[in-house]
Amino acid sequence: MGDAAVIMEKTFTENHIEGRNAVLEAFRAGRPIDKLFVLDGCQDGPIRSIVREAKKKDTIVSFVSRERLDSISETGRHQGVIAFAAVYEYSSVEDILAAARQKAEEPFVFVLDGIEDPHNLGAIIRTANLSGAHGVIIRAHRSALLTPAVMRASAGALNYTPVAKVTNIAQTVRELKKEGLWFVCADMDGQVMYDLNLTGAIGLVIGNEGEGVSRLVKEECDMVASIPMSGDIDSLNASVAAGVLAFEIVRQKIKK
Amino acid sequence: MGDAAVIMEKTFTENHIEGRNAVLEAFRAGRPIDKLFVLDGCQDGPIRSIVREAKKKDTIVSFVSRERLDSISETGRHQGVIAFAAVYEYSSVEDILAAARQKAEEPFVFVLDGIEDPHNLGAIIRTANLSGAHGVIIRAHRSALLTPAVMRASAGALNYTPVAKVTNIAQTVRELKKEGLWFVCADMDGQVMYDLNLTGAIGLVIGNEGEGVSRLVKEECDMVASIPMSGDIDSLNASVAAGVLAFEIVRQKIKK
Repeated sequence: MGDAAVIMEKTFTENHIEGRNAVLEAFRAGRPIDKLFVLDGCQDGPIRSIVREAKKKDTIVSFVSRERLDSISETGRHQGVIAFAAVYEYSSVEDILAAARQKAEEPFVFVLDGIEDPHNLGAIIRTANLSGAHGVIIRAHRSALLTPAVMRASAGALNYTPVAKVTNIAQTVRELKKEGLWFVCADMDGQVMYDLNLTGAIGLVIGNEGEGVSRLVKEECDMVASIPMSGDIDSLNASVAAGVLAFEIVRQKIKK
Repeated sequence: MGDAAVIMEKTFTENHIEGRNAVLEAFRAGRPIDKLFVLDGCQDGPIRSIVREAKKKDTIVSFVSRERLDSISETGRHQGVIAFAAVYEYSSVEDILAAARQKAEEPFVFVLDGIEDPHNLGAIIRTANLSGAHGVIIRAHRSALLTPAVMRASAGALNYTPVAKVTNIAQTVRELKKEGLWFVCADMDGQVMYDLNLTGAIGLVIGNEGEGVSRLVKEECDMVASIPMSGDIDSLNASVAAGVLAFEIVRQKIKK
């Protein structure tokens, strides 16, 4: 364990963890690991323990070739495993609801259905903080996660606004509806946002940069909101659209 | 001329132009050149012609060491000059006003007082397009210019929305006020945006990511608008703030 700690310190640059002891130690210490790369075909005891820990914690595991691992490695001594830790602890959805209760406010959450660009994710967390949202829920797969780039783009908001990572956004939305939240997603074919009632306990769903909100998630939403647009191109930048909708929610709250 | 054209084609990767003939040819062909790097101390005829062309066209000229030029060079054959061309032609402020007249609309322009991040500049041009603005005015110095990264981030909006580059934003604002535009800038100490009248011919001024709107420009503005914020951090991402304000202008226009 002493050894492992030393290795961990040595091999830890920002969010990069390499080597069997360091990676296993990181999992056992409860560090939030977003992604794990394992040498394909490697089946010995330590590697199997690491993969078991990863599965317990919903970490995405990729089995890759030695060449691939070597190219990812920063130390050249990966021993068949490299992990990427999140720069921040993830919160749970329950933590986010608890934050709202603690402030005696109706819950206001952002739900990101696959934001892939770290600049956008950081900017959205920043917007969530300043629009008074209680937290941000992101997708574990095909999504930007809490990397150093996201932390920089969030301009400190990650220190205040909890982010929860879930494997199934549609299911999370379904569960939160039972808690009394209404869900609005952004889509061009929706009703103009000024005509919707966006007050009360609300979840704002923002879709992927290219593909928008996925069909299964959209089906769970109570309302589809559109921003009144009048130009030549298709859509706003995802973080800008999130900002415009979030502050329409704020405006309706103030007016009420 | 034939030679120059060949060299230009060879040395042109995205927005990078190297070599005396290629650079001079680019200026004479009217290509929009944002920045010019010249070998310090180099004073011969062709270099003097290039610097003269650059000054005519408000291009920023930097005199640098051979080491610096070599490090910027992509071809290794810069002959003492490297130019960075914009990926798009700049428009003039007059072109932007003409676009409004042609649509028989009251002018709506974005004025960017030193947006430095290409992602932000691209996202703002995208927002300008979709909020129905007639154009975007940017600063020639200490500002992101029309590079390939901006073009990508604009998601095609640069094909439709004219961008003008000016050397003095405060003076441009002063001139546009004579044309009947009212100017609103974004700042935290302003009046809540819902309480301002943002209809009519309007210019929306967005400041630098770190420092906000510069004092001289702020003094020219008729109104200072704030977005009602309720979080822990200082400010929204600049492109998000621009989006929230632009769509408040749109909302007031629709309501009217």
